[in-house]
Amino acid sequence: MHVDTNTRLILYAKDEFGGGHSKTAEGVIRFGPSTVVAVVDRQHAGKTAGEVVGVGDNIPIVGTVEEAVKLGADAMLLGCAFVGGRMPKIWREDILIALNNGVDVINGLHDFLVDDEEFVATAKKNGRKLIDLRKPSDKMPIASGKAAHVDAFTVLTVGSDCSVGKMTAAIELDRLASKRGYKSGFAATGQTGIMIAGKGIAIDRIIGDFMAGAIEELVVESAPGLDMLFIEGQGSVYHPGYSGVTISLIHGSAPEAMVLCHKATIKSIGNEGDFPIPTLSELVKSYELIASFIRKAKVVGICINTYGLPEDEARAVVDEAAKSTGLPATDPVRFGVEKLLDALEAMRKTTRKEAAGSTK
Amino acid sequence: MHVDTNTRLILYAKDEFGGGHSKTAEGVIRFGPSTVVAVVDRQHAGKTAGEVVGVGDNIPIVGTVEEAVKLGADAMLLGCAFVGGRMPKIWREDILIALNNGVDVINGLHDFLVDDEEFVATAKKNGRKLIDLRKPSDKMPIASGKAAHVDAFTVLTVGSDCSVGKMTAAIELDRLASKRGYKSGFAATGQTGIMIAGKGIAIDRIIGDFMAGAIEELVVESAPGLDMLFIEGQGSVYHPGYSGVTISLIHGSAPEAMVLCHKATIKSIGNEGDFPIPTLSELVKSYELIASFIRKAKVVGICINTYGLPEDEARAVVDEAAKSTGLPATDPVRFGVEKLLDALEAMRKTTRKEAAGSTK
Repeated sequence: MHVDTNTRLILYAKDEFGGGHSKTAEGVIRFGPSTVVAVVDRQHAGKTAGEVVGVGDNIPIVGTVEEAVKLGADAMLLGCAFVGGRMPKIWREDILIALNNGVDVINGLHDFLVDDEEFVATAKKNGRKLIDLRKPSDKMPIASGKAAHVDAFTVLTVGSDCSVGKMTAAIELDRLASKRGYKSGFAATGQTGIMIAGKGIAIDRIIGDFMAGAIEELVVESAPGLDMLFIEGQGSVYHPGYSGVTISLIHGSAPEAMVLCHKATIKSIGNEGDFPIPTLSELVKSYELIASFIRKAKVVGICINTYGLPEDEARAVVDEAAKSTGLPATDPVRFGVEKLLDALEAMRKTTRKEAAGSTK
Repeated sequence: MHVDTNTRLILYAKDEFGGGHSKTAEGVIRFGPSTVVAVVDRQHAGKTAGEVVGVGDNIPIVGTVEEAVKLGADAMLLGCAFVGGRMPKIWREDILIALNNGVDVINGLHDFLVDDEEFVATAKKNGRKLIDLRKPSDKMPIASGKAAHVDAFTVLTVGSDCSVGKMTAAIELDRLASKRGYKSGFAATGQTGIMIAGKGIAIDRIIGDFMAGAIEELVVESAPGLDMLFIEGQGSVYHPGYSGVTISLIHGSAPEAMVLCHKATIKSIGNEGDFPIPTLSELVKSYELIASFIRKAKVVGICINTYGLPEDEARAVVDEAAKSTGLPATDPVRFGVEKLLDALEAMRKTTRKEAAGSTK
């Protein structure tokens, strides 16, 4: 899936901006190359994005799509992710308004715009595009483990749960690696990542048999010419619904190293109590064991999302994570990823030296 | 997916009968309630199924679909599973011949008959049915772990690789449990199992996010009124392409116990050398760890498919498996599953007693 990242965007986050479901909208504001002209959310109309979510500065929040389209947008992104990813019926009207006002619609949900006759007809009438970020290609590859053989140093982010910062960690590492002069890349595997990178594969929308194969192709196609490739992880092997997606990502991407991500304020999967999240050390052990089924890979560092905690508590949580695991730990947004990238660079140097030595 | 199991079947296994890809055909002959009137395979035309695969006694093998339809069939099953499950183009002609001769066509591959205009038109013209076993329902459930709470004793078969006997083990256990007077059920998760049971879900055809949820629904719908439910496993957590399907089955079905299946003659995944199969004890440990992420479940016994080995070697392999793991081991086809079911019954009794005790 490719999208044009040179776009003037409306972020549609009706009644959800700043809530648990608006991570796509926030991710695009934080990292996206696109210009965001407005957020649509009647709850916060009149405020700015900066006021509500702490990023996006003066991006205005408006109450209706009609107001947003007047600000000169090219496309409207449906910026909320519901559990299961299905499209709420109340969005229909707003999507039609956007199309009728000359704006493309970009959708990250499991329900596709292109499968809806009314959307298709309305887009056609107005000469607009419907872009379904999760629409998979028709290819049906079975993974064979070949991603283990790319030259680039491959790093996958893994996590304790969904929505703990796996995409953010991968992007921050990619950006710092580029700053340090590496040829670095970010391989997007979810709708937000695809919006930011302009390409990628929504792994969770792929048929089970072909998930690992699709990721393998993404890595094999992305890696050539790169020194480092940071792969966006999804879900958690401890998640009752999404563990299959997670393990397919681990085995399909067959990374050389992993970075474990966790959110400080959650104690159980979805913070709902049924499935407690194990200790960071147990998570490290489980991920390393599961990765080893296809390729041995070490967890090299820990990223803790400390959003919502005061600075001193955040620092204490990060320090405790480093102490309990013996690995470098950070909050990538608050404290940067310098030490984490140091550790990854060191590992890359060692493995490259070993590989060179072994061919002598 | 439901199919009529009271059917007179042609098994279409062109150039493949008895080879590595005809396991659906052989499974249906071995376990199916349907009557098989003929196998189509020009390589073995003139012989009987019994002569070629050791089951099916005098079922004739014919060279063409034209000959087979004359034997009075209701439906033709496409009985081979290719890697990736796509339909070979050379089958097209034979499918049209079947439809034009008044025979339904049943298909277990990823490519659906109902997506093909010519098949649909030909079936309609002849008043025939096209049945795609892998066609998923439109439901998109996310698993929540609720299969852990059914009253039936749930047993999942897991394996070292694909095609090692997970379906066979589950069916043999189900049949023996019924003989011993239990209300027992078999939950089918692949196309062969669905043909045999008459219903089930082809888990590998489901979109990643919903795989575990679909299995959870299958278990929750199958379990009421049963003492024991045997769930057909798929793939292996050590398979580079299919591990996502396997873990989704483990976490979606959240079984109380597992049975580990292995084939004596394979040393690596697909016997291709790249991914060595670990020891049985390591497999037990890995499966128990991964299951524990959602629900603790013990591997209670080992099933070894010793096909191709002489009797004394087969016995030695099974004995060695029991010794190395400390668990009851058998080849379910050669030596039956009595001891294995004894162990499962004992476990069921213990857990039921503990549960009764804990509510006092």
